[in-house]
Amino acid sequence: MNDQDQKNIQAFVDALPHAADLGMEVEDSGPGRIVLSMPWQADLVGDPATGVVHGGVVFALVDTASGTAVGAHPECGGPTATLNLRIDYMRPAKSGARITAEATCYHVTKTVAFVRAAAHDGDPSRPVATASAAFTFKRLEKS
Amino acid sequence: MNDQDQKNIQAFVDALPHAADLGMEVEDSGPGRIVLSMPWQADLVGDPATGVVHGGVVFALVDTASGTAVGAHPECGGPTATLNLRIDYMRPAKSGARITAEATCYHVTKTVAFVRAAAHDGDPSRPVATASAAFTFKRLEKS
Amino acid sequence: MNDQDQKNIQAFVDALPHAADLGMEVEDSGPGRIVLSMPWQADLVGDPATGVVHGGVVFALVDTASGTAVGAHPECGGPTATLNLRIDYMRPAKSGARITAEATCYHVTKTVAFVRAAAHDGDPSRPVATASAAFTFKRLEKS
Amino acid sequence: MNDQDQKNIQAFVDALPHAADLGMEVEDSGPGRIVLSMPWQADLVGDPATGVVHGGVVFALVDTASGTAVGAHPECGGPTATLNLRIDYMRPAKSGARITAEATCYHVTKTVAFVRAAAHDGDPSRPVATASAAFTFKRLEKS
Repeated sequence: MNDQDQKNIQAFVDALPHAADLGMEVEDSGPGRIVLSMPWQADLVGDPATGVVHGGVVFALVDTASGTAVGAHPECGGPTATLNLRIDYMRPAKSGARITAEATCYHVTKTVAFVRAAAHDGDPSRPVATASAAFTFKRLEKS
Repeated sequence: MNDQDQKNIQAFVDALPHAADLGMEVEDSGPGRIVLSMPWQADLVGDPATGVVHGGVVFALVDTASGTAVGAHPECGGPTATLNLRIDYMRPAKSGARITAEATCYHVTKTVAFVRAAAHDGDPSRPVATASAAFTFKRLEKS
Repeated sequence: MNDQDQKNIQAFVDALPHAADLGMEVEDSGPGRIVLSMPWQADLVGDPATGVVHGGVVFALVDTASGTAVGAHPECGGPTATLNLRIDYMRPAKSGARITAEATCYHVTKTVAFVRAAAHDGDPSRPVATASAAFTFKRLEKS
Repeated sequence: MNDQDQKNIQAFVDALPHAADLGMEVEDSGPGRIVLSMPWQADLVGDPATGVVHGGVVFALVDTASGTAVGAHPECGGPTATLNLRIDYMRPAKSGARITAEATCYHVTKTVAFVRAAAHDGDPSRPVATASAAFTFKRLEKS
């Protein structure tokens, strides 16, 4: 993506208080595709014995990446919202590690967008979580 | 539930930094069943135009209620973790409203627990979200 | 339901070749709610060692019940189709036993219907499978 | 895969009456990966107006491919069963067209295997359905 695109998408993410609070940063983007990352934070821990972040935090990153990917789809013509999302957890994210999520909007109908996503803590080939989701969608009207 | 049970479960929830941070409170519990609630907070907003909390926050409440319900199952003999969870969103939670989630662990095998949950913002008959999940499970060994 | 409703819904199910082939019968119905059942058949077995029917058969029953429940919703104004469905399997259905699925369409928006369902092989309190689904929806236009 | 592997996997699929009944054929395989296909059949139609096969049939193909992919994982040491599966439908499969499903078992724990799959009716880049699933798993014991 070019710098202006990245700035626009980052501004969109920053306007979401919870996403800004979690420190989400746009790493890369393309048509219907977004990579977001966020730092580990002590107050996001879900398991005090291990320092592993709460599954809800990984969900928030994956869900935000997914919705942003829908917004980045060339045919998207309006706001979107999560209809439903399945998240699978492979392993805990390493304590202290940055978490990165990549989401792809791989199909849209007139009213629904389909997304798949995965999150990792350093090695993309070893995901900590994967997701499948459907979002509400409004197709861009051709002028 | 009796007061001591409620205190024990609340202490368990308070030990999860992210859950404590979100102000989750145990409202009720029974065998394999938990009701948790949390207050609306400005920094949890996902949509600045409406004040609606981020879907990741509703997910965190539903996921925590679900895991706690597994822990409250009479045959549970060890820690649990989310394997996967599907969340469906019916409507946005009202800005400013407390959110309440009820989770029920309705079946366990030797290694997996099945949970269903729903969250609402005041009227249990009008859920804001519903969920289906599988958790890792360790059956209590009989002595 | 009255006899005419049951006949209409049965005629609808019978018009679906795969559902008719599986011998699906309407047991009961109400607004947004359907109970369908089907007999065990040797050629539907998924595990020859046990006579347990293939998970795809339980899915077909649950999916058909779910779509029929959407059609039985008072606000439904057109055909529906499965957007996505999560099915969880608790236990194998008993070899030789009739399988019954109950589906409820518990929320509709302008374009999406949400359904939950469960299937059992004789005892409704011990489901063999549960499901959560989203269907396309067309709201009845008021005249 | 070599010819003997393909024959072994085909024999496994043929031993499942419902899979044999649907005419499922092994097209390709690798470690934790399977490609299965099946012909269109008139009695599998779900929508008589269009000749589109019932979603339950696509599910049966995707579910069988997924379970077979788990069995083809190098660390698999015993039978497997579907714990849960989410299927998303992008579009109807073309009437008369062969349906092909590819499934990959991308992660295993001691007791659970994670699978993703997609089905198409001729063009793999335009899936008719995608799926995410968890299966029971028994890790091969090292001797």
